[in-house]
Amino acid sequence: MGDPGLWRELGQQLRVDAVRASAKAGSGHPTSSMSAADLAAVLLANHFRYDYDNPKNPANDRLIFSKGHASPLVYGLFRAAGALSEDEFMSYRQFGSRLEGHPTPVLPWVDVATGSLGQGLPIGVGVALAGKRLDRLPFRVWVICGDSEMAEGSMWEAAEHAAFYELDNLTAIIDVNRLGQRGETMHGWDLDSYVRRVEACGCHAIAIDGHDVEAVDKAYGEALEVEGRPAVIVAKTLKGKGVEAVENKEGAHGKALDDPEEAIEELGGVRDLAVAVAKPERAEPHVFPTGDLELPRYDLGEEVATRKAYGDALAALGAADGSVVALDGEVSNSTYAEIFAAAHPERYFEMYIAEQQLVAASVGMQVRGWKPFASSFAAFFTRAYDFIRMAAVSRATIAIGGSHAGVSIGEDGPSQMALEDLAMMRAVDGSTVLYPCDANQTARLVAAMAEREGISYLRTTRGATPVIYEADEDFPIGGSRVVRATDEDDITIVAAGITLHEALSAAQTLADEGISARVVDCYSVKPIDAAGLAAAAEATGAILTVEDHWPEGGLGEAVLSALAGLDERPKVELLGVAGMPGSGKPAELLAAAGIDAEHIADAARKLVRAAALR
Amino acid sequence: MGDPGLWRELGQQLRVDAVRASAKAGSGHPTSSMSAADLAAVLLANHFRYDYDNPKNPANDRLIFSKGHASPLVYGLFRAAGALSEDEFMSYRQFGSRLEGHPTPVLPWVDVATGSLGQGLPIGVGVALAGKRLDRLPFRVWVICGDSEMAEGSMWEAAEHAAFYELDNLTAIIDVNRLGQRGETMHGWDLDSYVRRVEACGCHAIAIDGHDVEAVDKAYGEALEVEGRPAVIVAKTLKGKGVEAVENKEGAHGKALDDPEEAIEELGGVRDLAVAVAKPERAEPHVFPTGDLELPRYDLGEEVATRKAYGDALAALGAADGSVVALDGEVSNSTYAEIFAAAHPERYFEMYIAEQQLVAASVGMQVRGWKPFASSFAAFFTRAYDFIRMAAVSRATIAIGGSHAGVSIGEDGPSQMALEDLAMMRAVDGSTVLYPCDANQTARLVAAMAEREGISYLRTTRGATPVIYEADEDFPIGGSRVVRATDEDDITIVAAGITLHEALSAAQTLADEGISARVVDCYSVKPIDAAGLAAAAEATGAILTVEDHWPEGGLGEAVLSALAGLDERPKVELLGVAGMPGSGKPAELLAAAGIDAEHIADAARKLVRAAALR
Repeated sequence: MGDPGLWRELGQQLRVDAVRASAKAGSGHPTSSMSAADLAAVLLANHFRYDYDNPKNPANDRLIFSKGHASPLVYGLFRAAGALSEDEFMSYRQFGSRLEGHPTPVLPWVDVATGSLGQGLPIGVGVALAGKRLDRLPFRVWVICGDSEMAEGSMWEAAEHAAFYELDNLTAIIDVNRLGQRGETMHGWDLDSYVRRVEACGCHAIAIDGHDVEAVDKAYGEALEVEGRPAVIVAKTLKGKGVEAVENKEGAHGKALDDPEEAIEELGGVRDLAVAVAKPERAEPHVFPTGDLELPRYDLGEEVATRKAYGDALAALGAADGSVVALDGEVSNSTYAEIFAAAHPERYFEMYIAEQQLVAASVGMQVRGWKPFASSFAAFFTRAYDFIRMAAVSRATIAIGGSHAGVSIGEDGPSQMALEDLAMMRAVDGSTVLYPCDANQTARLVAAMAEREGISYLRTTRGATPVIYEADEDFPIGGSRVVRATDEDDITIVAAGITLHEALSAAQTLADEGISARVVDCYSVKPIDAAGLAAAAEATGAILTVEDHWPEGGLGEAVLSALAGLDERPKVELLGVAGMPGSGKPAELLAAAGIDAEHIADAARKLVRAAALR
Repeated sequence: MGDPGLWRELGQQLRVDAVRASAKAGSGHPTSSMSAADLAAVLLANHFRYDYDNPKNPANDRLIFSKGHASPLVYGLFRAAGALSEDEFMSYRQFGSRLEGHPTPVLPWVDVATGSLGQGLPIGVGVALAGKRLDRLPFRVWVICGDSEMAEGSMWEAAEHAAFYELDNLTAIIDVNRLGQRGETMHGWDLDSYVRRVEACGCHAIAIDGHDVEAVDKAYGEALEVEGRPAVIVAKTLKGKGVEAVENKEGAHGKALDDPEEAIEELGGVRDLAVAVAKPERAEPHVFPTGDLELPRYDLGEEVATRKAYGDALAALGAADGSVVALDGEVSNSTYAEIFAAAHPERYFEMYIAEQQLVAASVGMQVRGWKPFASSFAAFFTRAYDFIRMAAVSRATIAIGGSHAGVSIGEDGPSQMALEDLAMMRAVDGSTVLYPCDANQTARLVAAMAEREGISYLRTTRGATPVIYEADEDFPIGGSRVVRATDEDDITIVAAGITLHEALSAAQTLADEGISARVVDCYSVKPIDAAGLAAAAEATGAILTVEDHWPEGGLGEAVLSALAGLDERPKVELLGVAGMPGSGKPAELLAAAGIDAEHIADAARKLVRAAALR
């Protein structure tokens, strides 16, 4: 049943390696690695099942370092497992190295990026959910957490969801080394304060001395035996363990040791233990049936909310693609994810009002190749922005559906109105940002999201809007659509979503006055159709953009960016929400925000007149 | 000690009023109000101390509806207290009414906006902290929470912080009505699951029947007696209590009742009870000494990190203005908030790694007129974006200092790099976004933030940069600074923060080649100096912007927006971070991102050549 002497030696090797790598780099977090070294050593040597030659093996256990700053320990494990050469190991934190300051999936054995604390455990919940409910494989998810990060509420969302979903395939290990970056944590070495909270959430807690390798081994064994709930090992450790100069000392966080040579000697010197990590038994994941894609079809002129079309299309997608799963934050009757839930209950996950866990679970599920669609009110994804940002660092592929965008939601008021989501989602590396104006367009874009890599986001509207496109029309990502045009247009109005309809109404008003306005549906906000916009600008001169969003960072600025490099740059006026909205009817609020048909027509008139005067 | 009969009647009045107002509006959350009506009635009639004629009275208790959707109940209380007329009460959710769908401080008796769930309690922690540690007044903070929102990790951040800071002036009341928007909550009526978790966090829990007014009264009495920790009342209630058609029924969330007349009759009809709410005893808040402002001064050419200048200036500000307080998320030795903490320990609050609580506590403190400066790594404020967004709805005045912006932080890698913070913070209503490039400028901007209303944000750099401005120079918000210019400049480079130094270096390179580049320091990203930029555009033609941020929503697009309406629009090229960064030295990462001096010079050359060819 394992060799405690080997575990101790491996723990020392991991410490030495953390000291060595950080010393070479001149930075890093050796002391945070040293506290968890024994915990990691016993896991690798006696419990972890992983095929380092085949990281994509679906039967592999998963190990997530929620305390991502312990990256020297992560990389030391890879070296001990024979996956990393000594040379590459020593490239830690150097430009171009795969061994970044915090782990990212640039390395094939890292599933998700960590380093923003409080994310590894909620993501682990997603991986464990996938294992239990989707893959239906016996792999285990191990998450090594810092004690400091237990102050993040997201960790307790994770604990609660893990217990609720009876994730006995998940083991969290809290490395209670007492010291945060700047001093003692809120709870120091009060292990019981963690045990109490963990148990109150419904998890099985095991408190141990994290440097007693036999106790650690026994705790892992106990965790493996627990049924019906996750295990949380609360391990008392010493930060910087094994090196007197830094052991349990403040001021030793996040820096290389002053005297690494002496530290290495104190730790017994460099070792080259190679661990033969147990491989998992061969197993194939469960597969859900896959059929033909029959997207919903809506009749021209029918009034349908795009959020409803999202739900309809998602359910259709679920029938066509067994890898599509849906998650929602307790508003599935508003986002219409409930349609998917009813059609595919095995692939629907209720995340309750915990948007961080909602996004984190999505990231976890895509680790195993599932295609998660996470939905909530668009405004509430602001709650999970750090998770979305980090999902991009994880090179994750997730789809997000945000409903109830903008002032057009009406009476519920500004707390429920997404007015910053376009800015937020555009500023995510490699993201796709879509904003449909009708139900058929929505359905096509939902289908496109399932094939799209990276973070894709669809913004939908609460109220019903008329269907203006035929069901078979194509809306490629990166495209736009000229909805109204003549050969002699005086101006282009660029809109999307709810404002597209206002723009069409304004164009009709203007036409009655002899002003011909081209209307462009810029449903793909990112990537944006720069060529299409340039063509419109060339044809009509001035451009007016209008969006149910703050003027900053949204559709208007996306258009400006697309046109900035043209040799002939059109005058562009941006209409966005002016001032904090209140409650009222959608039409009242669109008017008050200055983005309804009347304001659009007014702004267009002025732009056309100004152009005529020049 | 009170009249249970009156409380019951008042509870019924509040229910009737919730039904009436929602029926008139045609929307709203009557059933969520009805569950908490008895809890609110007993509080108003027998425990709450508030001067409705003087909402700014510092001795007033504070009542926050964390479940902001129970707004009909909030407004019903104001009506019962005589603060709202019947007419205004019935204007609920109408355009122009102060009675919005979710409460906002448009009403003088509402301190903070709620409606994004999970925020009221953490904000209440801030108000209670202010009462206990700053104002040093005996007012109490009461927070009525929904059971659904207890799934938000932020509520547990709040519980833990409230216990840690021994906030026995804070009472949370959880309205456990079992039903969320779409169905049952995770814990239903398992009161014990809440009690266990609340107690595990170190709070005093009291479980009661929330419709037994005498039990409610007794619970409030017990809460008032608890010393050294907050009390949390866990109240079992019925959603829609009192009206059979909706009581404890699914599908009755967030809508007016189908038959309000019948419901009102069932509830015993309309009442007009007027409650004489007890006023607090007169008391004056504690005041910290106020002195002269002596900002730090740095010598030209000295190498100082702007984050260090932030800490220095904040400490100086604290000495000059006793209302300035500082909070940090366990990174005060990185943000240099530790300098303030050392100088003004009574006004410094460690919020640990809980950025949502960090911002929420700031919002709570400003309710009482304090001037909070909240600091963390800029990247980690993404964690609190929903709180920042809602702070704007609250019309709150808070200052945020985000350090370690951009790829220039170096080895720690992308998880620690803020690359979306400018986009995020620009898209906050009425926000101010500042990005200084040197220490003297930083100091002046920190001082300006203390006088600025709304949400103000300062972005700082990790590494030391040379001081280029004299200590006495002025940097008004909304301004910019031409750092380098001739009468015959070929191009303008607009930069801020770290890229300003790269731009100056590029300009020198270009000058050696005979290209004259103007360099504008756009330290005020919002509001932006549109006139200054227009003047530069007119003088030089092409504009090149460069920022250590994603290309979306940041400095470059702010510049585009500022120039969009000019009659002669310059060609603008945006340089932002291209592709996901890794680890490396700051110079290596700036180069890889395409935003170092060499890339700037290269882009400038091409722009100038293209202009010459035209």
